[in-house]
Amino acid sequence: MATIRDVAKLAGVSVATVSRVLNQNGYVNEETEKRVRQAMKELNYKPSEVARALFKKTSKTIGLIVPDITNPFFPELVRAVEDVMNIYDYTVILCNSDEKTDKEKEYIEVLKQKYVDGIILTTNQLQLDEVSEWDIPVVVLDRPLSRSYPSVIADNYGGARLATKHLYDTGCRKIAHIQGPPHVVNAIERFRGYRDEMMERGLWDERLIISGNYQLKQAKEAVIEALNKYDIDGIFAGNDAMAVGALKAVQQLGLRVPDDIAIIGYDGIPLTEMTTPELSTISQPIYEMGAIAARILIKKIEGKPLEKLHYVLPVELVVRQSTRKGE
Amino acid sequence: MATIRDVAKLAGVSVATVSRVLNQNGYVNEETEKRVRQAMKELNYKPSEVARALFKKTSKTIGLIVPDITNPFFPELVRAVEDVMNIYDYTVILCNSDEKTDKEKEYIEVLKQKYVDGIILTTNQLQLDEVSEWDIPVVVLDRPLSRSYPSVIADNYGGARLATKHLYDTGCRKIAHIQGPPHVVNAIERFRGYRDEMMERGLWDERLIISGNYQLKQAKEAVIEALNKYDIDGIFAGNDAMAVGALKAVQQLGLRVPDDIAIIGYDGIPLTEMTTPELSTISQPIYEMGAIAARILIKKIEGKPLEKLHYVLPVELVVRQSTRKGE
Repeated sequence: MATIRDVAKLAGVSVATVSRVLNQNGYVNEETEKRVRQAMKELNYKPSEVARALFKKTSKTIGLIVPDITNPFFPELVRAVEDVMNIYDYTVILCNSDEKTDKEKEYIEVLKQKYVDGIILTTNQLQLDEVSEWDIPVVVLDRPLSRSYPSVIADNYGGARLATKHLYDTGCRKIAHIQGPPHVVNAIERFRGYRDEMMERGLWDERLIISGNYQLKQAKEAVIEALNKYDIDGIFAGNDAMAVGALKAVQQLGLRVPDDIAIIGYDGIPLTEMTTPELSTISQPIYEMGAIAARILIKKIEGKPLEKLHYVLPVELVVRQSTRKGE
Repeated sequence: MATIRDVAKLAGVSVATVSRVLNQNGYVNEETEKRVRQAMKELNYKPSEVARALFKKTSKTIGLIVPDITNPFFPELVRAVEDVMNIYDYTVILCNSDEKTDKEKEYIEVLKQKYVDGIILTTNQLQLDEVSEWDIPVVVLDRPLSRSYPSVIADNYGGARLATKHLYDTGCRKIAHIQGPPHVVNAIERFRGYRDEMMERGLWDERLIISGNYQLKQAKEAVIEALNKYDIDGIFAGNDAMAVGALKAVQQLGLRVPDDIAIIGYDGIPLTEMTTPELSTISQPIYEMGAIAARILIKKIEGKPLEKLHYVLPVELVVRQSTRKGE
C-alpha cells in the first residue's frame, strides 16, 4: 500500500506539502497540488482514517460514557447509540465510569487525545464548569447536567406521578416508595412526583419512604424491614431492579402480589416480563432516548442547528399482573 | 499548543524529519535528531494519540465485536474486556454485528482503517480463511472459530453433561433439551453433552429435543407445544433466557416447578436469581472469560509469548429452587 512518503517522492515534494493538500489548508500552488493529486491517483493512495484524524482533527469516533454496562438499563441505550452512529459511519468507544469522577476525567482526557468528534455522557459526577471547558460537542443522556448542554431525558416526574396514581386507582392507600440514590437526578425527580401525588391525595407519610440504591438485593432487605414496621399495601419502586427486590421481599414474607401488596417498577427493562407475577412498570423509551442523543450529537459535530436543546420524552404506564388485583 | 510544524520550523528541518524522529525509524543524523528533540522540549510539544497512531500504526484502541449487547450474556463480558483494557490504557470500540457477515466485514474494515491494535471476536459468521488474512492480533471469545487463533471458551460439553446428570440425580427420567441455534458452536456442544449423557443412561429419545433460538418467547411457545405432545419431567435449556421461557410455559399450563417439571438453564446470568422459583443453572465464568481474552490480546499486541493458545474454563452447577424437588 502506498504511503504519504511514496506520494511525496513521486510528486517531488515534501511530506508536509502532501499533507497540506490532503488537509486542504496552508498554501500550495496550483501546479504543485496538481502533481500531488496525480501522484495519489497513480499510486492509488488512500489516506487512512488515522491520517485523516491527524489532518482534520476528527476521527469519526465518539465516546460514550456510561456508569456500568451491566446495569440492565444501559445495554439498550448503548445499542441505540451504536446503531445510529453506525449509519453515519462513526464508531463508538465505550467507557464504564462506575460514576467515579476520577475515572470520568481520565476517560475524557483519553478521548480528547484520540480526537473523538463528540461525547455522550450519562453521568452525575462531573460539575458543570468542568464540562464547559471542553471544546468538543457533548450531549447529556438520561441524567441532565445543566441547561447549557443538549440533553435527552424521559419525563421522570410525570412518570412517578403516573405510577403513584395507578396504585391509588387499584385501591392502594398506604403506598411506599423505594427511592433511588439521593445524588442521582432522575431518582430525585421520581421522588418528587411520588411526593406531590401523595400530598395532593392527602396520603403523604414520610415513614413510607424506603431508601434504595437502584440495586435489587439492598431493596429486598430494605422492603423486608419496612414491611415488618409499617402497614403498606402498595410499593412504587424507583427502578425495575428494586421492584424485583420488593417482589422477592413480599413473597418471602408469605404475602401475595398484588392482592396484599401491589408493586410497580420504573424503566421498562425486559426483566419485568420475566418475573412471576410479571411486573407493572413505567416504560421509558430507552432505545429512542439513545437514538435521539446520537442524532443530536451528529448534528452538533456537523455544525448543524438543533431543533431544540432539551428533549423530554414521554413515558408509558404498562399494567401487568403485579398491580391487577382480584384477577 | 505546539504542532509538528512548529517543531520542524524551530529545528530548521522538514515535517518528515520530525516524524522520523518521533517514529524512531528512517535515517536521521545525530545532530539533526538532537536539534529536533531540543525544539520539542522548548515548545513543550506532545504528539497526540492520533499522531502516535499514524507514526506507529498503533492506536491504543481495540475492537470488540459482539452479536448484540442487549443479549444479557454480553454486558458482563464487555465490561470485563473494558476493565482490563482500561488498566493497560487501551480503549474499546464496541461493535454489534447481529451475527451478520456483511456487518462484521464492514466493521473489520473500519477497525483496520482506524489502526486498532487488535480485535476480540465473538462470532460464528466469519469463515476461517477470512480471519487468516488479517494482519492484526485477534482473539476469539466464547465461540471458537478455529484452532489457529487464541480462544477463550467455557466447557460447554462438560457443562451440558453436568446439567443433564443433575436433572437425573433429582429423579427426572424424561429429560427434554431446548437446543440453541443449530449454527452456533456452543449450542452444538451443549447438545452433544446432553445427548451423550442421555445415551449413557439409556434415556435417549430424540423426540425430547425442542428447537430453540436462545430467545425467551420462542422457547416458551416451543415448550408449550412439546408439553402438550410428550410426557416430560425435566427440562435442560440451552441458555438461561430459554429456561425462563420454559418456566413461564410450565406455569401457564398449571404445572409446578420443580415438582412436576424441574428446569435448569445455562450461562448463570443475573436473571436466574430474579425469577420465582429461582432457576438452577450452569454458571459460566463470564467476567473471567472476558478478562482472560483481553489479557491474551494485549500479550499478542505486545508480541509476548502466550502460555497457551486455547483456554477452556470450567463451569459450575448452581442448584436453586427450580430443581429442588420436595422442598
